Amino acid sequence: MKIIRSVRAMGKEIKRLKKNGKIIGLVPTMGYLHKGHISLLNRGRKENDILIMSIFVNPIQFGPEEDIKRYPRDIQRDKAIAVREKVDIIFYPRARDMYPSEFRTYVDVERVTEGLCGGRRPGHFRGVATVVAKLFNIVMPDRAYFGQKDAQQAIVIRKMVKDLNMPVKIKTMPIVREKDGMAISSRNKYLDNKERRAGLVLSQSLKEAKDLVKRGIKDVSIIKRKVTELIRTEKPACIDYVEIVDKEKLERLKYIKKGHTLIALAVYINKTRLIDNITL
Amino acid sequence: MKIIRSVRAMGKEIKRLKKNGKIIGLVPTMGYLHKGHISLLNRGRKENDILIMSIFVNPIQFGPEEDIKRYPRDIQRDKAIAVREKVDIIFYPRARDMYPSEFRTYVDVERVTEGLCGGRRPGHFRGVATVVAKLFNIVMPDRAYFGQKDAQQAIVIRKMVKDLNMPVKIKTMPIVREKDGMAISSRNKYLDNKERRAGLVLSQSLKEAKDLVKRGIKDVSIIKRKVTELIRTEKPACIDYVEIVDKEKLERLKYIKKGHTLIALAVYINKTRLIDNITL
Repeated sequence: MKIIRSVRAMGKEIKRLKKNGKIIGLVPTMGYLHKGHISLLNRGRKENDILIMSIFVNPIQFGPEEDIKRYPRDIQRDKAIAVREKVDIIFYPRARDMYPSEFRTYVDVERVTEGLCGGRRPGHFRGVATVVAKLFNIVMPDRAYFGQKDAQQAIVIRKMVKDLNMPVKIKTMPIVREKDGMAISSRNKYLDNKERRAGLVLSQSLKEAKDLVKRGIKDVSIIKRKVTELIRTEKPACIDYVEIVDKEKLERLKYIKKGHTLIALAVYINKTRLIDNITL
Repeated sequence: MKIIRSVRAMGKEIKRLKKNGKIIGLVPTMGYLHKGHISLLNRGRKENDILIMSIFVNPIQFGPEEDIKRYPRDIQRDKAIAVREKVDIIFYPRARDMYPSEFRTYVDVERVTEGLCGGRRPGHFRGVATVVAKLFNIVMPDRAYFGQKDAQQAIVIRKMVKDLNMPVKIKTMPIVREKDGMAISSRNKYLDNKERRAGLVLSQSLKEAKDLVKRGIKDVSIIKRKVTELIRTEKPACIDYVEIVDKEKLERLKYIKKGHTLIALAVYINKTRLIDNITL
């Protein structure tokens, strides 16, 4: 396994691989790998000649008040996992190489970035779209893999790729959960035992919503109220949003549209913001 | 010579060419070809295996008050020129294929888009950067050719390519002029004989500026005043801007920096807006 840190060196390596007709898969990550990432690596390994994983905690997708410094890192552990998962290349660039001081160009995806996390984290998806555009231009993957846990992110990236005609296929992989249902996330590490138990309310309330729909309830306001009530039973939980939207356009629904509905949550457990979602 | 109209078909053709290791040159145009474009085609023909010219009058770079409907078109003449210049493929997409109704993604290059034409034509360079990003993703050129006449456009595109790590080399070719010095432009067609004579004041005033610098004048305000006075002697001329800036950053200068100075003009001749520039 190679570890490449410079953007220029990565570009050269890709040129060489492309010349030899290699099909390239990219799993973009911010490191601190967990089972969610590993599911992306597994699929990427199966579908491509060359599997590249990027590790980059992207500064421009964090707001000034957000947790970039606190964001967990463990490059040695990540390397060991990458070897085990048969990654060919880790692309691990430095922030000053990705964003030199005179950096001025951004990719803006409008509309689908306005609600949900986009409304709460201004500039977040601008940062995500921009770094992903850069990674795609550097690595030139045939396929790139994203997790459904960041549902809005996956939609924003699909929209960018389609609108800008980027020659890459986006694959979105299902949420990986702990046995008790908790969606796996790097940020779960911030939680103490009590908070971890409280955090379970996200997946539980989504399950409750699903059950309500199964029982024939279609009115979004009823489901939203039930979900909100359930989350509020947990003392450390503070709702950022509960949204029931069209799963592609992310526009709010009044009634559940079977096969087209995304229920997405963001909930603070004390200081830690957790997200989860299901599609119906 | 092939003419390809669909984005999808163009993508397929490029995939085939790339598989065969072909080096691709792209000359993006809005059609109505003149000697300026031909100089780009000449260079592109020499430097690449496959020469592709795009013809697309890009709606999103025109403001609501601007001349998109009036913009001159002559596809038959353009085709004949392309054959003569040994273009391999004309990519001639439809607006609805480039911008379907749900299109929402834009590339924003900040700072260098703020002054000069960017200040006068809000959204113009957003439109330019976005369509060029799309064309690059569809055609995947190794080299792309732009004219120095649109000096700010060339700088914006270079900045976008650098910031987003696009794998393409940008070549900027010198302004092509008529015998009397007038910079060649598709918009010259709008001018009647009287206006054509008045339009000559752009290149003449740039020459005057150059002479002043040669005679040792470095104070930008003096040069600006002289240029402004000269343009004002032409009755149909109305100055949009006269700017003397750093030729990369496009920031205003107080004193001429040899080798780093761009003098750029935009002048209305009655209703027709002409631009011209020199670097010192």
